[in-house]
Amino acid sequence: MTAEARALDRAIERVVTLGGLEERAMAVTSGRLDALTKPRGSLGRLETLAIQLAGITGDPSATFGHRAIVVAAADHGVVRQRVSAYPADVTPQMVANFLVGGAAINVLAARVGATVSVVDAGVAGDVPAVATGATGAASLIRAAIRAGTDDMTEGPAMSRDEAVRSIGVGLDVAAVLEREGIELVGIGEMGIGNTTAASAIASAMTGVPPERVTGRGTGVDDATHAHKIEIVARALAQNAPDPADPIGVLAAVGGFEIGVLVGLIVGAAGARIPVILDGFITGAAALLAAALAPGVASRCIAGHRSVEPGHAVVLERLGLQPLLELDLRLGEGTGAALAMSLVDAAIAIRDGMATFESAGVAGPEATEPV
Amino acid sequence: MTAEARALDRAIERVVTLGGLEERAMAVTSGRLDALTKPRGSLGRLETLAIQLAGITGDPSATFGHRAIVVAAADHGVVRQRVSAYPADVTPQMVANFLVGGAAINVLAARVGATVSVVDAGVAGDVPAVATGATGAASLIRAAIRAGTDDMTEGPAMSRDEAVRSIGVGLDVAAVLEREGIELVGIGEMGIGNTTAASAIASAMTGVPPERVTGRGTGVDDATHAHKIEIVARALAQNAPDPADPIGVLAAVGGFEIGVLVGLIVGAAGARIPVILDGFITGAAALLAAALAPGVASRCIAGHRSVEPGHAVVLERLGLQPLLELDLRLGEGTGAALAMSLVDAAIAIRDGMATFESAGVAGPEATEPV
Repeated sequence: MTAEARALDRAIERVVTLGGLEERAMAVTSGRLDALTKPRGSLGRLETLAIQLAGITGDPSATFGHRAIVVAAADHGVVRQRVSAYPADVTPQMVANFLVGGAAINVLAARVGATVSVVDAGVAGDVPAVATGATGAASLIRAAIRAGTDDMTEGPAMSRDEAVRSIGVGLDVAAVLEREGIELVGIGEMGIGNTTAASAIASAMTGVPPERVTGRGTGVDDATHAHKIEIVARALAQNAPDPADPIGVLAAVGGFEIGVLVGLIVGAAGARIPVILDGFITGAAALLAAALAPGVASRCIAGHRSVEPGHAVVLERLGLQPLLELDLRLGEGTGAALAMSLVDAAIAIRDGMATFESAGVAGPEATEPV
Repeated sequence: MTAEARALDRAIERVVTLGGLEERAMAVTSGRLDALTKPRGSLGRLETLAIQLAGITGDPSATFGHRAIVVAAADHGVVRQRVSAYPADVTPQMVANFLVGGAAINVLAARVGATVSVVDAGVAGDVPAVATGATGAASLIRAAIRAGTDDMTEGPAMSRDEAVRSIGVGLDVAAVLEREGIELVGIGEMGIGNTTAASAIASAMTGVPPERVTGRGTGVDDATHAHKIEIVARALAQNAPDPADPIGVLAAVGGFEIGVLVGLIVGAAGARIPVILDGFITGAAALLAAALAPGVASRCIAGHRSVEPGHAVVLERLGLQPLLELDLRLGEGTGAALAMSLVDAAIAIRDGMATFESAGVAGPEATEPV
């Protein structure tokens, strides 16, 4: 057994040991919310979010001021099959853009006070040597497994060893976040071709056929969409991944950035750091993480639901309801960053409102019989 | 014709003179968004929001830093029919809470840098004499028509003259906002019993029967819900409001705070100030405003969709798609305040991202033929 495989076993064990969410912290938060000057439950998802956050952290006073967005990036051999509207060159170009602060995730993370780190998990092409330190610019974590996966229509995207190593990178990143005192992490990804990998993972893990989980990614035309569905089906036929073996699924039809996200989710869950998922690709990673470590899903927050049809399938399987539905299809962690605003709103409500008692406001049916 | 009626005619004329949204400003914004380092349209509703805001203001560089939440409050005679889980006393108590900064809207408005003003449009009970100036506290505008409407099951809620006067209050508030340079307004309301009035307005204006537009408000039980539907039906049967006469509908089954909101929406629309609607009651006001002044709806932004079944009916009639769906049922402008975060995100994207050209990122199919 490799060091990475042992680290993964320990990380899974840590999640399992935690068990379910902390009921006591949830009850305290729920009681606090019910005492505030509003009808019970009338702030809907903001209230359930505050309660979930208490359950994940075990701390009904946690404020989540220290927060990070981690964007995992890698390339995909399957782009040779012409499944994307964009050339693979865009992956390193966008990583460079993250490092100068020019991408959507830089802008949206800065708004909510989150740092951005980019993990090079296997980008094919030159990634700039240094971060620029520009406002909102991302820092770079170099951890490439190799320069892009193999074409999954011709065999597995990566070896089993590489799959475990990519997960190990994510565990390492989670350990750094934990050491740095990060209290909330949003995850995102960049990789031309990775909606194809996510579609294959979603289909393999849920049994839902490729045509129902394969969308248009960053925007392909009808013909390319039909072709993409066929490519996903061909990759699944070629590799016959077993849903009972999530590492095998990752190796067969995944991506290095997806492996990093799996490790990051498992590691953060074990550290009681709430993980805000972004779109379809992070959702596919969460499916794999939840299959590895039961209990992970309840420690994840679905930031949004994207337009990718597979995303709804994935979220349903995870048992997660998205906070936002804004027809996003960008990735990068943009939906996760937007959802951080709702975390802030939920915490502001929890901590900032008057109680019925302090404000002298009557509760339901308190002054008149009905 | 009264001074208020003449003011309303002028306000309507102003909206009509504006015509549709400014195509040129929208095209500039759309072009800007398409040049940014992301697939076209991949930020979904954030992009359409930025474009709509340009169309409303005519200014593709508007940043909406000066913003206000206006909460109109009043009481409803129909509460005698026991349609709410809360006693009418809660209306003045909550107004007092707004003035000390203890309510949800104070907390959520402060987060997005919006001031809060409360308009006493007809609260039954003592409203505190002075604002406290506490952090996040609301200012008070005293403009009560009278201390609550009449019971609409026994006759019109108010006279036609009072309806026009309540709209006039809203026009006056809009004029103040315009003079103060407010660039974005969110609207909310407080009034025990006002989901009953909103249900009656929605049914009268759309023809959808009471049972499909009447919900549980702040949270009534099954028996009270069934009773509330019957009360709405009885009020409509008693008054037979004509949907072609929105002022008549307001008088018959509306509320003073709803009238204020109608005037505020018409006035802000004429001043090219985008109006973020909150929940069902503000939606019912927007229905009336749109019936008075065609073109108003396109100048409104649906902040969220509440759990009130009538809200979906109203939004569909207005042709508006909600930004958020968070199962809110509080009112006060809370959903509008939350949506202001998305306005900020949309503007940050528009102004903060690199372009394909500046970042040296390839566009779709730019470096490889597909």
